[in-house]
Amino acid sequence: MEAQKRNVRLHIEYDGSRYDGWQRLGTTDNTIQEKIETVLSKMTDETIEIIGSGRTDAGVHAYKQVANFKTNSMMDTQQIKAYLNRYLPQDIVVIDAADVEERFHSRYHAISKKYVYTIWNVDTPTAFYRKFTYHDPRPLDIHAMQQAAAHLVGEHDFLSFCSNKHMKKSTIRTIYGIDIWREKQEVKILVHGNGFLYNMVRIIVGTLIEVGIHKRQAHEMREILQKRERKYAGETAPAQGLVLYDVEYE
Amino acid sequence: MEAQKRNVRLHIEYDGSRYDGWQRLGTTDNTIQEKIETVLSKMTDETIEIIGSGRTDAGVHAYKQVANFKTNSMMDTQQIKAYLNRYLPQDIVVIDAADVEERFHSRYHAISKKYVYTIWNVDTPTAFYRKFTYHDPRPLDIHAMQQAAAHLVGEHDFLSFCSNKHMKKSTIRTIYGIDIWREKQEVKILVHGNGFLYNMVRIIVGTLIEVGIHKRQAHEMREILQKRERKYAGETAPAQGLVLYDVEYE
Repeated sequence: MEAQKRNVRLHIEYDGSRYDGWQRLGTTDNTIQEKIETVLSKMTDETIEIIGSGRTDAGVHAYKQVANFKTNSMMDTQQIKAYLNRYLPQDIVVIDAADVEERFHSRYHAISKKYVYTIWNVDTPTAFYRKFTYHDPRPLDIHAMQQAAAHLVGEHDFLSFCSNKHMKKSTIRTIYGIDIWREKQEVKILVHGNGFLYNMVRIIVGTLIEVGIHKRQAHEMREILQKRERKYAGETAPAQGLVLYDVEYE
Repeated sequence: MEAQKRNVRLHIEYDGSRYDGWQRLGTTDNTIQEKIETVLSKMTDETIEIIGSGRTDAGVHAYKQVANFKTNSMMDTQQIKAYLNRYLPQDIVVIDAADVEERFHSRYHAISKKYVYTIWNVDTPTAFYRKFTYHDPRPLDIHAMQQAAAHLVGEHDFLSFCSNKHMKKSTIRTIYGIDIWREKQEVKILVHGNGFLYNMVRIIVGTLIEVGIHKRQAHEMREILQKRERKYAGETAPAQGLVLYDVEYE
């Protein structure tokens, strides 16, 4: 009988520009999950599978992704972290490694997530921040965007804000808050919720931008929610502006 | 007889990671100067030569490089800027284009420059800022570094801080100030002077780091200056942490 395995939790930062997203796909080996699993499997001489708090799409970044894995390895967590940072590509960094209780599960136990979307909102593009921002030079009415966002806060059916056409599970989610502010050349949108559907944050951002340029009015958000069809919401904002900022646990 | 040509000044931001520095070399076409000259020559149907305020080394970035060029083109400066930003690679951005008087020369008329060097000074590397920082996890004694830097302020012969072994011109320069501060995970070093020798800022930074880790004492800076030999100063800090921050004119 196998001994009870250790459960190790990782906090991971990544620049998602080069990757096909977080989750192992089978069709490509260019996902962040695989890069980490490959190094861990080599390190432990076991077949390691890591469980992330959730997927991030191709091109989306993480300031703090949370993942966990089971292992028989006796390496201490500082060594695990150092080994990973030595052998992972430079655009994936392990910020922290810690032993956690056997039952901890990165996805099931996550109670909320924060995403931040950054729009580079001046005429001239940026050479420095181009990989982490979406350049939209059109003047944005922040106040109108804030009013529109307020309609999304609370528990709603977000089917209109989901790219997956064959979604069979519940599309009801709770958004705890959406903060929108200007910071020098950037407009930042922070979305805090208990969970997110496929492309949900990017569709919310794309729709809020349409309110910001007065192509839509703030009150239309309620109707979009009620329609429960993807086509009523706005464009999906580009991946590179999006960062998984934090994952919270009890 | 040729009519008097327009003189156009550019403010340029670039991520130098992919390039062999600012200056056209003849041996490669991978310099920032050439990328801009190629687009301008195509735009104007002339052979455009641009004059930069000075060189930046391979891998060094600019938040504001200044350059100028002469042209017969009648395009207005907004169009020039838009054309450049459309056809330049995304890691080179023209922030401003302006008509200036005939005699303006980006290099001759520059009276001072500011460089900022950024050290990522925590144990864990950074996925997001890796291209614009140098990761050195060793604890740095900022106070000792400030004391050391104070010895460099003023007019001195900086031959010990110059990588060019065959420097025939004067190696006397004036440093107006060196500011060193901690900002979250980073240590920043801002050097303001009337001009800089080849690798001078990077050798200053490398030597200050050696003071910061107590491998050298602050007062040694005076002796290093007096020796007038490269070997007495510290290591040349890596290029990627350095940004040409500003160029000042009368």
